[in-house]
Amino acid sequence: MIKINEKQFFADFENLRQFGLQGEGGAVHRVAYSPADMEAREWLIARFREMGLDTYSDGVGNSFAFYRGHERLNPIGIGSHSDTVPYGGAYDGALGVVAALAVIRAFHDAGERLAHPLQWVNFAAEEATMGGGTTGSQAMTGIFNMQMLNKAAWDGRPVREHMIGAGLDPDKILDARLPKRGGYAAFLELHIEQSDRLEKANLPIAIVDGFVGIRRYAVRFDGMANHAGTTPMASREDALVAAAPMIQFVRDLAVELGIVGTIGDFKVYPGAPNVIPERVEMIVEIRGLDAAILDDAQDLIRGEAQSFGGEFDPVVIKPPVEADMIVRDSISAACAKLNLETLTMPSGAGHDAMNMALICPQGMFFVPSKDGISHSKDEYTSPEDCLNGAQVMLETVIELDKKLSAKS
Amino acid sequence: MIKINEKQFFADFENLRQFGLQGEGGAVHRVAYSPADMEAREWLIARFREMGLDTYSDGVGNSFAFYRGHERLNPIGIGSHSDTVPYGGAYDGALGVVAALAVIRAFHDAGERLAHPLQWVNFAAEEATMGGGTTGSQAMTGIFNMQMLNKAAWDGRPVREHMIGAGLDPDKILDARLPKRGGYAAFLELHIEQSDRLEKANLPIAIVDGFVGIRRYAVRFDGMANHAGTTPMASREDALVAAAPMIQFVRDLAVELGIVGTIGDFKVYPGAPNVIPERVEMIVEIRGLDAAILDDAQDLIRGEAQSFGGEFDPVVIKPPVEADMIVRDSISAACAKLNLETLTMPSGAGHDAMNMALICPQGMFFVPSKDGISHSKDEYTSPEDCLNGAQVMLETVIELDKKLSAKS
Repeated sequence: MIKINEKQFFADFENLRQFGLQGEGGAVHRVAYSPADMEAREWLIARFREMGLDTYSDGVGNSFAFYRGHERLNPIGIGSHSDTVPYGGAYDGALGVVAALAVIRAFHDAGERLAHPLQWVNFAAEEATMGGGTTGSQAMTGIFNMQMLNKAAWDGRPVREHMIGAGLDPDKILDARLPKRGGYAAFLELHIEQSDRLEKANLPIAIVDGFVGIRRYAVRFDGMANHAGTTPMASREDALVAAAPMIQFVRDLAVELGIVGTIGDFKVYPGAPNVIPERVEMIVEIRGLDAAILDDAQDLIRGEAQSFGGEFDPVVIKPPVEADMIVRDSISAACAKLNLETLTMPSGAGHDAMNMALICPQGMFFVPSKDGISHSKDEYTSPEDCLNGAQVMLETVIELDKKLSAKS
Repeated sequence: MIKINEKQFFADFENLRQFGLQGEGGAVHRVAYSPADMEAREWLIARFREMGLDTYSDGVGNSFAFYRGHERLNPIGIGSHSDTVPYGGAYDGALGVVAALAVIRAFHDAGERLAHPLQWVNFAAEEATMGGGTTGSQAMTGIFNMQMLNKAAWDGRPVREHMIGAGLDPDKILDARLPKRGGYAAFLELHIEQSDRLEKANLPIAIVDGFVGIRRYAVRFDGMANHAGTTPMASREDALVAAAPMIQFVRDLAVELGIVGTIGDFKVYPGAPNVIPERVEMIVEIRGLDAAILDDAQDLIRGEAQSFGGEFDPVVIKPPVEADMIVRDSISAACAKLNLETLTMPSGAGHDAMNMALICPQGMFFVPSKDGISHSKDEYTSPEDCLNGAQVMLETVIELDKKLSAKS
């Protein structure tokens, strides 16, 4: 039986953590295309070259390692991303990358091969630091918008500048695109949960059934700016008073419909204590797995906005994406084999696996995040849970190889 | 009978409007201590010198003209301010200044004198462009805080720099201070209403019975920033949801208590569409003439904030100020003489007359503002209402002279 080399797995994980580490126990600051990010990628790639494997990088900075199979089949992709948010944590992305390294190491060290080749994938710029997120998988799957290159990255400098600084040629990004068919037999990602459902349920593994659809609406209320001292209450058109009911409405609606709803961006103009607000601009965001429910929510939010004189404009409509049954079933079988109990949940965040749905069957599973924390130096997953993740990935790959071979 | 010279009054008004005028029918941009402001003041002062009157300016930029009386008494002060908000209108402040000029011109042209001297006062920096407002009258009445000199003015530059640019010595501001007694026999200000009560009631003159007390509270709600996609509704601590009820509460409370209440400054952090708000900071402002009612409102707002986990800190407590009965009665008698019907109302805004209460009996009256607009190029008061203002000022001064002489 092929087994994860635990000691090596944790050593690799600790080694990766050093790139961008802000002092003992500090944040991991490994923003995409930074020297820390590029050095970490290079270090990871070197681990595969040590094993004698072929490695390469593409125009957007994704890096790959190839472990041959018995057959000339498309590979099963496994991996995640090694970049972090500014001053982030050691687990988000990194765990999946190191687990996939451990899985290939396990096969390599045992001298075993599956029918399918395995392809380790370390996606570039997954975190939303480069104008948006999942930059690398967008480029691979043909949905990268070249105008993003001119957008401001997290530090205000254009994305293009960051890529050039990392030795990449932004004009060659489109070369990273893979064919619609023929790239991967399947893709599997392991990630920390980033919420606290596993921890609360005291369970080790969550199987992702899909990626929520994301909709954002710009809602705007116009009033009339006027002197806060001299204007009688009855003569006011206060945009903040008009906008206020939307806050509770979105919350109650989300609870009722079993989705999430957030108003994170809420601005009041002109913003002086002695001036009645003339305008409120907010972004209402809803996320859910069921497009029909999101449609209903959209109608209700529009109605609520308009009933208070607000304007309502959709600005983002990302449809939900289902995880492929062949991958879900394989994760499930792997967990059964390992005696690990699971729950099934949607991913509320976008991930590279979601984009990979455009070119191959894909799926994803989560391990617990302490207190649901992510994007922070305080993110933490216990060694036991990390190891579970690597082992589930290993067994899932074996299951997937069988199921995919049976299918073809 | 002494009469306002109508033609000259409107000519003076139009002349003053030219200083800072942004093209035909445009805004008047005559911010305190700017070249436009200083040139306008100089032009006004020159009108009095033409009449052979003594004029002077003090260390903060207030300017004065002195029209002798029969007796050696303290003067009756009349005037307002000629500075504007950035891109403001032609009437706010300017009307009172030109009307007071017209009143003194009327006595001068008729060769008449009252028992009391008349002192024309053009206060410096009344508008809140210099860190705060009523700078000139604060300096005169001994309540100017020298730390204001280091605060940012409307354009971000320190107040001190603006004053130096206007040829003033900021270190001599305190020299502008008048004695507690002995400065003025009384002070009278005419101003546009800045709300629409006169217009709605179709009345020409409002007698101000007092200046509202102003209280501002910093109210803060803390939540926990978290991922708007992955954090279930039940696990959230959303600072915006906690803060929202305060908006309607303040409005309803103000209506119920007959005061005004405004949340004009309301900020949500960190302010990203996909991050649950971790903090909301707002300034709740209430204004009213009755300190006991403001006390009640304060208790209720504190209770509401705390019941939703908010923090509550008073940041401004300005007590209400009553207008003096001798001045109110004089305005009333003047209006009766001129057959002008009046209403009585508090001033919801601060004015220089309010500060003058610290050193002498004071009072104020308003003429209508079209649609209640002020601080805008659209502010407008009809020529008839402007003239009423000048005539009421003239007759009030005559009444005041009588009443003050009878009293002493």
